[in-house]
Parts: sequence; structure tokens; C-alpha cells
Amino acid sequence: MNTVGFTWQAAPAATEMEVLALDWLAQLLRLPSSFMNRTGAAGRGTGGGVILGTTSEAMLVTLVAARDAALRRSGSQGVSGLPRLAVYAADQTHSTFFKACRLAGFDPANIRSIPTGPETDYALDPARLLEVMQADVDAGLVPTYVCATVGTTSSNAVDPVGAIADVAAVFNAWVHVDAAYAGSACICPEFRHHLDGVERVDSISMSPHKWLLTCLDCTCLWVRDTHRLTDSLETNPEYLKNDASESGNVTDLKDMQVGVGRRFRGLKLWMVMRTYGSAKLQEHIRSDVAMAKMFEDAVRADDRFEVVVPRNFALVCFRIRPQGAMTEEDAEEVNRELMERLNRTGKAYLAHTAVAGKFVLRFAVGSSLQEERHVRSAWELIKKTTTEIMEEEM
Amino acid sequence: MNTVGFTWQAAPAATEMEVLALDWLAQLLRLPSSFMNRTGAAGRGTGGGVILGTTSEAMLVTLVAARDAALRRSGSQGVSGLPRLAVYAADQTHSTFFKACRLAGFDPANIRSIPTGPETDYALDPARLLEVMQADVDAGLVPTYVCATVGTTSSNAVDPVGAIADVAAVFNAWVHVDAAYAGSACICPEFRHHLDGVERVDSISMSPHKWLLTCLDCTCLWVRDTHRLTDSLETNPEYLKNDASESGNVTDLKDMQVGVGRRFRGLKLWMVMRTYGSAKLQEHIRSDVAMAKMFEDAVRADDRFEVVVPRNFALVCFRIRPQGAMTEEDAEEVNRELMERLNRTGKAYLAHTAVAGKFVLRFAVGSSLQEERHVRSAWELIKKTTTEIMEEEM
Repeated sequence: MNTVGFTWQAAPAATEMEVLALDWLAQLLRLPSSFMNRTGAAGRGTGGGVILGTTSEAMLVTLVAARDAALRRSGSQGVSGLPRLAVYAADQTHSTFFKACRLAGFDPANIRSIPTGPETDYALDPARLLEVMQADVDAGLVPTYVCATVGTTSSNAVDPVGAIADVAAVFNAWVHVDAAYAGSACICPEFRHHLDGVERVDSISMSPHKWLLTCLDCTCLWVRDTHRLTDSLETNPEYLKNDASESGNVTDLKDMQVGVGRRFRGLKLWMVMRTYGSAKLQEHIRSDVAMAKMFEDAVRADDRFEVVVPRNFALVCFRIRPQGAMTEEDAEEVNRELMERLNRTGKAYLAHTAVAGKFVLRFAVGSSLQEERHVRSAWELIKKTTTEIMEEEM
Repeated sequence: MNTVGFTWQAAPAATEMEVLALDWLAQLLRLPSSFMNRTGAAGRGTGGGVILGTTSEAMLVTLVAARDAALRRSGSQGVSGLPRLAVYAADQTHSTFFKACRLAGFDPANIRSIPTGPETDYALDPARLLEVMQADVDAGLVPTYVCATVGTTSSNAVDPVGAIADVAAVFNAWVHVDAAYAGSACICPEFRHHLDGVERVDSISMSPHKWLLTCLDCTCLWVRDTHRLTDSLETNPEYLKNDASESGNVTDLKDMQVGVGRRFRGLKLWMVMRTYGSAKLQEHIRSDVAMAKMFEDAVRADDRFEVVVPRNFALVCFRIRPQGAMTEEDAEEVNRELMERLNRTGKAYLAHTAVAGKFVLRFAVGSSLQEERHVRSAWELIKKTTTEIMEEEM
């Protein structure tokens, strides 16, 4: 429980269990074997995984690997070519991506936040991505990294992974898939299509601590070629040298992360998978999605409300619909009032977001103890509070 | 136990307890009040702390803050000035520092690893630092960051904090103190002098998970001006906006770290401090140091061995002394043989290092269950194994 497993040698069992749990989860997600540590009879491939703290770290280490590879390719001396590297993501991408880019030293002027709109349900449009990348090349920049999100935080938009990989391939840019939340749903065959094309990306991360019954922190990162990570992240001080590392037969997970010391995070993922099994984990996802669907149906059946973007997983983005002479500002005001009154009750807690200038409420199913009756009572509370607000407005 | 405390709002108690535990530890270390979150009647100062995973992250976030400040000062457009920034540390500094510099985008050619030698017991010589920094300025570079270590991993060398701060001040460079291991000893008045001058540095980190009875991971970082961190690390997406953050009265610890999600690490530090109290924590340090001293005395009393560098804390760097016609290569061979035989017994575990080309064994006292009898039996085993090796060599 208090291992300090920087190298395989420092904690062989912790390392092996982490690698095993990652391979199990990769199988459940039907990731191509190129992302696995052990590929059956063939032994070790070039790919592999590591458990990190949060998605931010997965983004940072892959950004650094892509950055260094682009600098090497461009024949840059040291980091002299860094001001010319450019990175790409939809404007719906998690804010931590843009922060990770700055941490890795990318020029803020070359960090592209590509606008999305209702025509793609707020997903990144590959045609638009191609235009932006080509314009950068024409301006002398070097496209280096594209982040595609499967299930954005704000509204659960899904960037088209395969089409984005095809665009990025034109420019030899690294593609990372951030499936932090919705990756968990992809263990169910009916949601797996959201990862179609993943065999053509360079890395993918998802966080079982979001929606797979695992405590924070547990972010799984898989890369197709671990050497592209370790080329940037390996250290080899005298006091850590050991026969196991030098044999080349073991994985030193410290070389795939920011720091050196690391906790035994593999244990909890292994426990979750062994305890529930794949069928029960799928059932957990389906049950949450069904509850969200139930809430969505209720919203759609009440004329006072609207579902603002299509529901993909267990998040419903809705609001009180602007009625009569109500302006967008008025709509924001009543919806904010609804959120604040709900949250003050202590019986429900909703966060908001902004989509295309609209103030939107987010009803997220995801707590492990949530049941249909909680969804029903939350909906009753929402309806009752809305009636109160509407009457006061009259 | 499974809070996700990115913002104060998301976990007020976890945030407050972390801030409280950090202030307690800062008091125990007699850090100046400028590093504390709450400075008595005066309320909040400009400084503060955060608990991170490991020292690597503390180095990375302070490097990024120092980098951005240097770029702003030099009037650089974006990161165009980055290839001119230079960073400094002794060659005994942990390898993760040099990795963190590369992660933050510093040019590998400008990452200075300043040689140390026996004349300073492998500590950074401030006069040498001044020469190197001045030479860089003369060559058109911008000194940006100096890392001073209190208790190096290899041999527990102590860089002179105050003198290094004085040199760095000439160039307006950020000074970070890495006291990961030996910071714990500085809670005892008799060791506190190793931090003299800390009031003139910009940041200091130490890891209670190394030597203060706390489980991995728990690295405390204090900075004198938190705004210098948050200027580089703050994010403010719509879905995290909340009244508490906007009031300016609370600390959102996500803005002092790499990621967004964060565990309730403050709890374990608070528990350790409440459970043991300052007197028992000091007793724990003194007991370990006394056991190391006992081992050191035994080594010094046996002509076949030598203590290679002076012992500062609970680490003894020793080796079988080259005797007769024994070359340095022979000495390395017998010492390596001794280490391997000891480690194969399963009764003791020693790691090695290299100091000034010498292969050196490291006897570290630090396990929470270690007692004098374990040190005595390890020493008996070392003597017996050495006798066997010597007889075979005859």
C-alpha cells in the first residue's frame, strides 16, 4: 500500500499488476493490440500503457514527446524551432489542454482553439481542421499535435477520431484522444463506434476515476510506440541503475510520466476489474445512460424546457426555453436562478456551461449510488422550482 | 476519501485542511511567514503552499512560472526568447530536475549542471555559480532559475541556500530549494541552519513521504508569491466558475499544479501532524540520525572501510577502502560484490552511487520500523561478507 515504484526493480509486483490491468482495460475497449504491453504469444510490442494522475499529465507527456519529435524532424538546434510548432483542438476541448500546451513551452500564439458550432453538435469539423493546419503550413509553421475529445466536459461532444487522424496524417502530427469521461462508455459495444479510427492515432487516455467506479486518481494512457515517450522522459541516474532495467526486459514506468516516485495505482484498477467483471461494468454504464435518457425524455415532454444539444452519454444539457418576449439575457437569468435555487436545497447539484452563447444546465448521472428514484425526485424539484420562478416573473 | 477538489468550492474542507496542514509544517520548519497562507492577525499574505505528487511537479510548476516571468521581463514575443533562457543546478541535483527543465521547454544546451567536488563535500559552490551565470549573461543568455538542494539523493550534500540566493539575486533569477528528503530533518532546531537564507528564495519544496512518516505521495511546495505561480497555471472555464472563486477570498489549489482534479492529500499530512505532534516527529528524526551515527562510528572504527563523504543526516556513504595494490577498478569490483551479496540475503538492502568516480555504498536509515538491533545486525552481516570476499580475493 505504500510502494514507491519508480522502477520495475523497486516494485515488480506493482509494475506487473499495473501493466496487466491496463491490458485488460485495453481489451475491454477493443483498442488495437499495438497499444498493449503484452500482445499474446507475440510478447511485447512497441506499445504500452501507464497509469497517471489526471488527463492533464497524459496530455503534457504526449505533448512533450510530440514536441521533441517535431523539433528533431525539423532539424532544429535545441529548442530554436519551438516558436514555429503549432497545436490544435476544438474550442470545446478541456481548458487543461491549453494549459498543458503552455507548460510544454508551445507559443500561445500557435495554440489553435478551433471554433465549433451546432452544425456538428460542437464536435471538431475535420474539414475546418485541415484548413487551419494547411494555413499554418503555408505560414511556415509546423503542425505538431492534435487533441481529439471523445465526450467533452461541457456538453459531451464527440470529435470524429478517424477523420481527425486522417487529416493529421497529412502533416505527420501526433494525434491524442482524450476520452477521460466517455472512454468508460466505450467498453459497451453500442458505444464503441465513438472510438472508430483509434488504430490510427498515437495515444489515447481515459480516466476510470470519472465513470468506471475507481477512486481519483487513475488516468490510463496508452501509446502506440512507448519509445516516443521514453525518448523524452527517460532518466538514468547512477543510484537507480539495476540489472532488471539494463536487461531491457522490464518496463520502468517512471520513464512514461512527469515524476519519478509513483503510487501503486494499478491495484485499484485491478480490484475494480476483478470485483465487477466486464458484464457488471457494462451494466453500470448502461444503467447510468438509461437514467439520463429517462431525464431527457421528461425534459422533452415538458414544453417549458429544451434539450440544447443531443445527449450522447449520461449528461443532459437542458434549459428553460426562452418564451414569449424573453430575450437570451432573460433566459440566462431564469436558468441561473433555477440552478442556484436547486443547489441551495442540497437535494440536487447542477453545474452550468455555456454553449453557443446560451447558459445551459448540466444534469449528469454518474454517482455510484444514484437510482431512478433520485432522478425522478430531481425532476420533480426542477419542475416545481421552475413553476415558482415563472410565477414570480409574471 | 474520494473528493475531487479542483476548486475550493468543490471541496472546501479538503482545501482548508490542506492549507492548514501546510501552515503548520511551515511553522515547524520556521519558514518565514511570507510562505504561509495565513499569517496570523494579518490574514492572507502573498505567499502560500500546495501539496503536489512529487518533487518533480514542484520543480516543473516553479520552472514554468520562472520561465514565463523571464519571458515577460525580456519583452519576448510569445516564446521567441525561450532559447536564450538558462537554468542552473549542481551536478548532484536529482535527475528529475534536468528532466523537468526539458519538459518546460528549456534548451538542453542552456541547462547547466555545475560540477562539484570533495572540496565542498559535493555542494554547489556559490563562487562557481556566479562565474557560470555571469558567463551566460556575457554570452547573451538570461539566467532564469537556480535549484539548490538540501540533502542530495546521492550523498546528502547541502547546497548553501543563502549564498546561492545572494548570487541569483544579482541576475533576478528564481531560486527554488529542493529539500525533498532533508527538509524533514529541519523541523529539529539543530538541523534548521541548513535552511538559513530561505527567506530570500522564491520557493521551497519538501516531501513528508520521504522521511516524515507520511505515505507517498505528499510533496509540499511553498512559494513567496502565489500570484507568480497562478499567473502561469490559472484556468477559468465556464463550468468551473463559481461565487467562491470570484470573491477572491478562497484558494483554488488547481491553479498551483499541473492538473485540475486533485486528491485530499491534506488529510494524511494533517493526520500525521495531529497524531505524532512536533515533539514526536522531532524524536523520530533524531532517532534515525542517531542510528546512522552509530553505523558511521562502526565503519570508522574498522580499518577495512572508509566513510567517503561526511554524514549530514541518516545516510552513510561508505565503501571497502582500496588496500595494498588494489586499484579503483578493483575497489569498485569488491564493493559491488559486497552490495550484491548483501542484497541477495534479503536481510539488508543497499543502493549504490558514484561520487567523484568512486563506487560508493549507501546505508540509509529511514524505515519507520527500523531499530538499533537492525543496524547492528546489518553491520555484522557487512563485516562477515567483507571478510569472505577478502579471503576469496587472496
